[in-house]
Amino acid sequence: MQTPQKIAVVGSGLVGTLLAIYLKKAGHTVHVYDRSPDIRNIQFSGRSINLVMSDRGWKTLSDIGLDDEIRAIGIPVDKRGIHMQDGSYITQNYGKEGEAIFSLSRGILNRKMIDLAEKEGVEFFFNQKIWDVTLTDATLHVGETERGEWTEIKFDKVFGADGAFSRIRHRMQRQSMFDYSQEFMKIGYKELHIPANADGSHKIDKNSLHIWPRGNFMLMGLSNLDGSFTCTLFMPFEGENSFEQLKDEAHLVAFFAKYFPDTKEVIPDLVVDFFKNPTSYLVKMKCYPWTFEDKLALIGDAAHAIVPFYGQGMNAGFEDITVLSELMQEHGDDWSRIFSEYQKSRKPNADAIAELAERNFLEMSAKTADENFLLQKKIEKWFSDKHPDKWMPLYSRVTFSLQPYAEALAVGDYQNEIMQEVLKMDNIQEIWNSDVVEQKIIALLQ
Amino acid sequence: MQTPQKIAVVGSGLVGTLLAIYLKKAGHTVHVYDRSPDIRNIQFSGRSINLVMSDRGWKTLSDIGLDDEIRAIGIPVDKRGIHMQDGSYITQNYGKEGEAIFSLSRGILNRKMIDLAEKEGVEFFFNQKIWDVTLTDATLHVGETERGEWTEIKFDKVFGADGAFSRIRHRMQRQSMFDYSQEFMKIGYKELHIPANADGSHKIDKNSLHIWPRGNFMLMGLSNLDGSFTCTLFMPFEGENSFEQLKDEAHLVAFFAKYFPDTKEVIPDLVVDFFKNPTSYLVKMKCYPWTFEDKLALIGDAAHAIVPFYGQGMNAGFEDITVLSELMQEHGDDWSRIFSEYQKSRKPNADAIAELAERNFLEMSAKTADENFLLQKKIEKWFSDKHPDKWMPLYSRVTFSLQPYAEALAVGDYQNEIMQEVLKMDNIQEIWNSDVVEQKIIALLQ
Repeated sequence: MQTPQKIAVVGSGLVGTLLAIYLKKAGHTVHVYDRSPDIRNIQFSGRSINLVMSDRGWKTLSDIGLDDEIRAIGIPVDKRGIHMQDGSYITQNYGKEGEAIFSLSRGILNRKMIDLAEKEGVEFFFNQKIWDVTLTDATLHVGETERGEWTEIKFDKVFGADGAFSRIRHRMQRQSMFDYSQEFMKIGYKELHIPANADGSHKIDKNSLHIWPRGNFMLMGLSNLDGSFTCTLFMPFEGENSFEQLKDEAHLVAFFAKYFPDTKEVIPDLVVDFFKNPTSYLVKMKCYPWTFEDKLALIGDAAHAIVPFYGQGMNAGFEDITVLSELMQEHGDDWSRIFSEYQKSRKPNADAIAELAERNFLEMSAKTADENFLLQKKIEKWFSDKHPDKWMPLYSRVTFSLQPYAEALAVGDYQNEIMQEVLKMDNIQEIWNSDVVEQKIIALLQ
Repeated sequence: MQTPQKIAVVGSGLVGTLLAIYLKKAGHTVHVYDRSPDIRNIQFSGRSINLVMSDRGWKTLSDIGLDDEIRAIGIPVDKRGIHMQDGSYITQNYGKEGEAIFSLSRGILNRKMIDLAEKEGVEFFFNQKIWDVTLTDATLHVGETERGEWTEIKFDKVFGADGAFSRIRHRMQRQSMFDYSQEFMKIGYKELHIPANADGSHKIDKNSLHIWPRGNFMLMGLSNLDGSFTCTLFMPFEGENSFEQLKDEAHLVAFFAKYFPDTKEVIPDLVVDFFKNPTSYLVKMKCYPWTFEDKLALIGDAAHAIVPFYGQGMNAGFEDITVLSELMQEHGDDWSRIFSEYQKSRKPNADAIAELAERNFLEMSAKTADENFLLQKKIEKWFSDKHPDKWMPLYSRVTFSLQPYAEALAVGDYQNEIMQEVLKMDNIQEIWNSDVVEQKIIALLQ
């Protein structure tokens, strides 16, 4: 057991709130600060992308017995539903029979987590703006405005779970030897909406992640419990087929009619939603170190903000909590060591999932419409079913396993080299599930 | 001619001061702000590396007739003087007969430039801390402390020439779509000193850049007008042969006796200087965009901080000024266009010199002690002397030409591939200046 500490968690998002529950269960006093109002009392923003919970996230929840309550507000999604531009529709299972990711509304999940945290005894302080932190003594500086009066609140430890634009990290950035990078993607996104049928049922298959892959842009949709879908249009800000071009109703409607004709029926409020909802940015952020002595640690997006294309942002943040919790059990009151091992263990894995997530945009937006890619996936699945000891596809390693991301990335690259050789075989379209291919893969694996 | 503007330059370093002279000569009112005292009234810091002026820097100075005054305070350096660990000493010319870089003390040069700027009518405001800038109307926020009272000063344009840790850039960083990275090197540096002889002469050859290359660390020395040398020890912070290990006098003296025995005579105050002078950091910084509408531009280290191993930091900053000045002449009052073309033109070149500078640490610290590398340099020089139209070595492209850095980098990589082929030739040590080699290079160049 650790000596009880007075701990501040800055940020009441998913990672901050779940971390708070863990810390509280470990016997500490936990105060969560957020500059925004309580999400339980406000409308959602119109700029969210639905989340998917996969094995890493479930582990963090189940280790403290919260998985059932969260599973009850999610919908299992076991395949991609690919809407081709020619009107055809293909499905592609994500994993083996029974394996699924879970679609969750960010807002509903966050509300639920805050309820659970309060029940556990975590105290929340909303509308409290943290402008600065004194690293050496874990003191937060809170006030109405950046230039106004501030109050100091002293803690034993501070966790910065305040997202990609973390104010806590901002202070660390001004230290020597702090490495930092932020890069905005040339692709932005817009939330759109498929409402439920009158009887509350879903208009399209709720157990598929729907993708309309169109090369350098795509539409995707994930189901909600209320029968609706949260859809997201990912598209470059500028150039051909970009947000810049969809400047008025006429252009927008023509564009959707050309590229997403089958959405006409299911997105009735396209024009209103498109011009009401903001066009949002995507940012990649890396930094190091993540901790300051035994006083402060960054976690989740505040330490490693990635693009959303692998559905792993929340899962990676939850896995941070698992690692931290294990280190807390191992090293007791030696917080310097806990923090130091936490960052050393997590940094290479955070970098790996950042890389995987960025690569996955191309996979989703272009490759899912590519025959060779679909064939590769088919061969991998077939071989993996026959030889589960010899082959686990990269997507499964990331999504349905707890293998460290850095290992998954390395093995995935190695497997991909093998598959490129296999795809060069004569008549591979016909012989893809033959003994010859099976033996070839086994030989290449030696 | 441009319509006169009221312009603030933040930073009275080399780039800020020279930019101020250019702007003043173009007819503008120019106020230079610096958070530090006037460098003309204070002692130098004990943490500077001597500068070298090369062709790009000279062009910016000569275009406004300041080159002669600066040349008078510098010392031409036409070769490397390489102190091998076995006691041998090799020299290596930098360019052709008559080509030289100029060694300059940063402090002396900066004082001189401020004198020249004041003579031109530039107004300086020292000890004025700029904490923030309003981008949309070029207003500076000045005050004693970050949290205290600030005064607003409105300008037409603001230039951020406030270095690698630019406060002006800090405001831009908080904008969406601003890409930024900072990375601290694992290598730090320490200033040391070779005093002049009693008669004011130099103890070692003043026209050489002295290097003691020792693999992952090195010592270098550049001459000053007063007979002394400013030396710099570059070394990792941690690990084998690192600053961490030189923790007391005994370790320091033993280390220098082992690796730099010939410095015992010439660095008499080694122990005092080593423990008095700080161990300084090296940071690489990249960002984009560099400008905000027609209101603000970053320049020099504030836009692109690089490591010092190519001697190009100041030269690259001065070249920014040349490009900006040419665009001012071309586009008159269209400052949006001036700023937009300035950043588009300079960004790829800033990235290229950053890359070249980082690679050059290995060249200086390790390769200058490598036989193959010395042979490569010899072949390149010989071939280039015979065929100046066909071959200019990379160092000369960067240092003794105005070829854009990005082009120099690309051609240099291409030339290096050719040289790697040449070095594989049988007996290359003997036949390096034969017809066979000459014809081989010509063939490879086709």
